[in-house]
Amino acid sequence: MLSKNKLKLIHSLRLKKHRLEQQLFLVEGEKNVEELLHSQLQAVELFAVGEWILSNRLLLQDKAIAFQEITPEELARASELVTPNKVVAIARMPEYRFNTELLQGRMLLALDGIRDPGNMGTIIRTADWFGIEDILCSLDCVDLYNPKVIQATMGSFTRTRVHYTDLTAFLKSISGKIPIFGALLDGPSLHEKKFSSPGVLVIGSESHGISGELLPLISDPVYIPRSPGSPGAGRQAESLNASIANAIICFEIRKQLSENKF
Amino acid sequence: MLSKNKLKLIHSLRLKKHRLEQQLFLVEGEKNVEELLHSQLQAVELFAVGEWILSNRLLLQDKAIAFQEITPEELARASELVTPNKVVAIARMPEYRFNTELLQGRMLLALDGIRDPGNMGTIIRTADWFGIEDILCSLDCVDLYNPKVIQATMGSFTRTRVHYTDLTAFLKSISGKIPIFGALLDGPSLHEKKFSSPGVLVIGSESHGISGELLPLISDPVYIPRSPGSPGAGRQAESLNASIANAIICFEIRKQLSENKF
Repeated sequence: MLSKNKLKLIHSLRLKKHRLEQQLFLVEGEKNVEELLHSQLQAVELFAVGEWILSNRLLLQDKAIAFQEITPEELARASELVTPNKVVAIARMPEYRFNTELLQGRMLLALDGIRDPGNMGTIIRTADWFGIEDILCSLDCVDLYNPKVIQATMGSFTRTRVHYTDLTAFLKSISGKIPIFGALLDGPSLHEKKFSSPGVLVIGSESHGISGELLPLISDPVYIPRSPGSPGAGRQAESLNASIANAIICFEIRKQLSENKF
Repeated sequence: MLSKNKLKLIHSLRLKKHRLEQQLFLVEGEKNVEELLHSQLQAVELFAVGEWILSNRLLLQDKAIAFQEITPEELARASELVTPNKVVAIARMPEYRFNTELLQGRMLLALDGIRDPGNMGTIIRTADWFGIEDILCSLDCVDLYNPKVIQATMGSFTRTRVHYTDLTAFLKSISGKIPIFGALLDGPSLHEKKFSSPGVLVIGSESHGISGELLPLISDPVYIPRSPGSPGAGRQAESLNASIANAIICFEIRKQLSENKF
């Protein structure tokens, strides 16, 4: 049986304040928990239905993780996943140190005010696909450990280091030394842009784009060309979703620099 | 004051069954309602706070739309938007007819079991950006008029025609006549692929990819190359989000065929 205290702990980890106090976060769903157990991250405790425990018994033994079998009804109370779920884990927040050596010849993302958990998670998943290991976030970005972010990463939170920092100060410190790419709504077309080395790609917020104080620091602005539309067709889409813009630019940089490992 | 009956009508439109019965759907938030009012779609009735009505008075007069001023508290009860909202509209479902003339020299999307409202909305928004006007959906895709889909389109629902159909029958009917592109987890690299004409791009579901019966109909499979990763680095991202894969392939096709209007 899932004790009241455990249920209370799980529920409390939906709030950033409690996550910070405890230095713990929730991992929900089969895919994410499986990735957690195969990663370097520390799983503290795990709650699952019998069926899941049975098919993952060897892995649980191998990792020596405390686990408890609970009923599907108890899991439904513990987990906020909409789709039927089988497992919830509590994991310890890792401590990542960011240092400028991580910039040498590697591609990084810098997220400026990304607020939507789905976008944040999708950006992390896309970064993982394209081999980007470090993501810098402004302090007003949504928390990585928000359960909806973790969910949308589809396990990529285990392979990507997310650092919250004063983005302006960071970009000022590297300005002129490393290319700073930025997704803008005008500027040089991504169809023509030649990338000769990796750098830091800045993605602006869903509502305001890249903030005014960061704009002068963008050395390489790029624009994803919109279809010209029919003459007199009237209105057109105003922008692309932040995670979409990020993915298209990462794809193009990756394509051009496919010889490089970044 | 927002009457009980109106509130009941608004709430009922969160369910597909009631939307179909009434042939009406909800449009929430400033951006989406603004796009609705500038489109060919029929807005039936509108509920907004005084501030919004004041700044849109001319537009409301011009379009001769029935509107009602309601309090922020009433709006909060009517709307499920998480962010503070100012306006909700009820619109009439348009009737779109799909015919094969729409295929001539134009790019189309075919969505196979897209279930996530955010993904569906983002795909519609991205299609609009790249000038794709028609989207075919398998019958098990999420409903276009789900309020979360409309929300994620950021107004692009007004410029994109979404058709629900038997996707297998449709793709069989065009097989061999028009290229059928498909995003797969292996196959020819999108880095090398040359697109010589537009076609239909098939995007598979979040959980299962393109369904088995559609796979043999894909004439041009493409794979978005993943970073090779460090030797011995262990696990890697398994896939990209469906809306991300769609966007990257649309970008690349658009880039190569930028002379064509599609």
